[in-house]
Amino acid sequence: MKSDVILLGHGSGGSLSHQLLDEVIVPALSGLAPREQNDAALLAAVDGRLAFTTDSYVVDPLFFPGGNIGDLAVNGTVNDLAMVGARPLALSVGLILEEGFPLADLRRILVAMRAAADQAGVAIVTGDTKVVPRGKADRIFINTSGVGVCDHDFDIRGSRARPGDKILINGSIGDHGMAVLASREGLELESDIRSDSAPLNALVAALLTAVGAEIHALRDPTRGGVATTLKEIALQSGVDIVLDESALPITPAVAAACAILGLDPLYVANEGKCLVIVAPEAANAALTALLRHPEGRGTAIIGEVGPASSGRLLLRTAIGGLRAMEMLAGEQLPRIC
Amino acid sequence: MKSDVILLGHGSGGSLSHQLLDEVIVPALSGLAPREQNDAALLAAVDGRLAFTTDSYVVDPLFFPGGNIGDLAVNGTVNDLAMVGARPLALSVGLILEEGFPLADLRRILVAMRAAADQAGVAIVTGDTKVVPRGKADRIFINTSGVGVCDHDFDIRGSRARPGDKILINGSIGDHGMAVLASREGLELESDIRSDSAPLNALVAALLTAVGAEIHALRDPTRGGVATTLKEIALQSGVDIVLDESALPITPAVAAACAILGLDPLYVANEGKCLVIVAPEAANAALTALLRHPEGRGTAIIGEVGPASSGRLLLRTAIGGLRAMEMLAGEQLPRIC
Repeated sequence: MKSDVILLGHGSGGSLSHQLLDEVIVPALSGLAPREQNDAALLAAVDGRLAFTTDSYVVDPLFFPGGNIGDLAVNGTVNDLAMVGARPLALSVGLILEEGFPLADLRRILVAMRAAADQAGVAIVTGDTKVVPRGKADRIFINTSGVGVCDHDFDIRGSRARPGDKILINGSIGDHGMAVLASREGLELESDIRSDSAPLNALVAALLTAVGAEIHALRDPTRGGVATTLKEIALQSGVDIVLDESALPITPAVAAACAILGLDPLYVANEGKCLVIVAPEAANAALTALLRHPEGRGTAIIGEVGPASSGRLLLRTAIGGLRAMEMLAGEQLPRIC
Repeated sequence: MKSDVILLGHGSGGSLSHQLLDEVIVPALSGLAPREQNDAALLAAVDGRLAFTTDSYVVDPLFFPGGNIGDLAVNGTVNDLAMVGARPLALSVGLILEEGFPLADLRRILVAMRAAADQAGVAIVTGDTKVVPRGKADRIFINTSGVGVCDHDFDIRGSRARPGDKILINGSIGDHGMAVLASREGLELESDIRSDSAPLNALVAALLTAVGAEIHALRDPTRGGVATTLKEIALQSGVDIVLDESALPITPAVAAACAILGLDPLYVANEGKCLVIVAPEAANAALTALLRHPEGRGTAIIGEVGPASSGRLLLRTAIGGLRAMEMLAGEQLPRIC
């Protein structure tokens, strides 16, 4: 590469585009030879329902404790597939680059994408790169879409929560959002907060093997946090959900940072967490399966689905009261993912 | 909607995001009820190889004669699936919106996306919306990814062009690029140039039915134009390709606009055109099948694969000379798609 920054010509579709693709992007992400690059990737036939999802990533800063926009983009889409019970098969990567973006930063991001894809056992099979003039985008935006397959017939949906179901989460909440925010604002915290960005497909596969059809809903509480996500499920299922405040796993560092900034960790984004809504008789089996998994060591039962059907999310506070919680209003933390 | 422009909170994942999704985006694109929205869409099992592709769209201006960024984004991804011989099944839509973007423009774009998807017979099944602060993106960027299935075993790839193959295109070249450029620069042309943006999946299906396995390669000459695309195929297949200048279908309006601006229409983007590389004995059958199709009325045989194997693209000029053509160098037309 003759330039060490992105040029407009890298998005032209011509020789500079090919050079960027063949020398930087494809070697990092897939290793596909130029003669095998076509308009779409072909995948082998699969047996089972297909899952399909997409997410764009505009996080600021691009690099933060615990990850960067690259692994975040891969993990986020892997997790969206896992949340419907699908095994991730293939990812696409759409890059929108600002003219002048340093190639060194791009390489670092691509390396993180490939490492995350390898960790999740999913291939990056197709991509696209656009370049816009300086000032028309903020450095880099990444879209990842994903295709997966369901190896089972379980019916896992946000509308399937039932009275009596238990609600589990696989570890501490608010880590991603607070890591990004602390990094963006240059906060000096007593202890480092790291993003929890992680692929959850193996954890979900273990859970499905252990308790299968008793899993009613799975959802990763990203933007909007645990409270917004559970409120969505309460509305989708037409049930009340009661969260137990004293059971919520929150690290002292995140609790302290939230207190300083006046934020409620229940509304802060997570990127390696999964809410599990499971039939009560399978709750202990689910807990055991999750605790055994590396991404589930902090699993806790944090609430249950109540008997009423009014679509409320209620927080049982430490002193025993019940407080209704709504979805996140406004823009608490823009560009958190 | 209380606001008539996009607010940062519309990307928060909270209540404003849900309002935008439930009142504007989902009704326009898919009609999926809120209670059936999950992290990924589930599709029925299919029989055959899967195709998967992605493209981001950053075209400027957003609205141009013959289309807008919305139908362009749908047609482009539908066409990438068609170019590997796949039947498009489902699309995803990833929106990156700039704070302050008018909701009226968003609605107009979404309507165009849905109309294009309906025309192509493909469903928009999943999506994502991010919002960045004013000045951090240019109004709207759209990623569309697509999943398709191959109903046949034909092997259609850029590396399969063979000596003697004929090269066809389904109509006039350079229309999209010149329509966008004329619109962007406010050129006053004697006759309007309209983008050729169109879905090509039905045309390709008709072609495959007519000549099937004799189709060696298909490619839509978007960014970089016909010359860059054919140079790619020449390199991928290790063949020489000879284009016949006098056979190239170019409208007088595009030819005149290119002459004024000093552009070569062979390097100007198309969004409803398909290069067909077909075995010589099937060329007439392919021509007939394409001419019968509404998107193929302007089909012409524009060249052939020569006997040499040096990866060159050669233009046989009107006066009989042979001129070597390279890929587009630099950034002739930024943000053309």
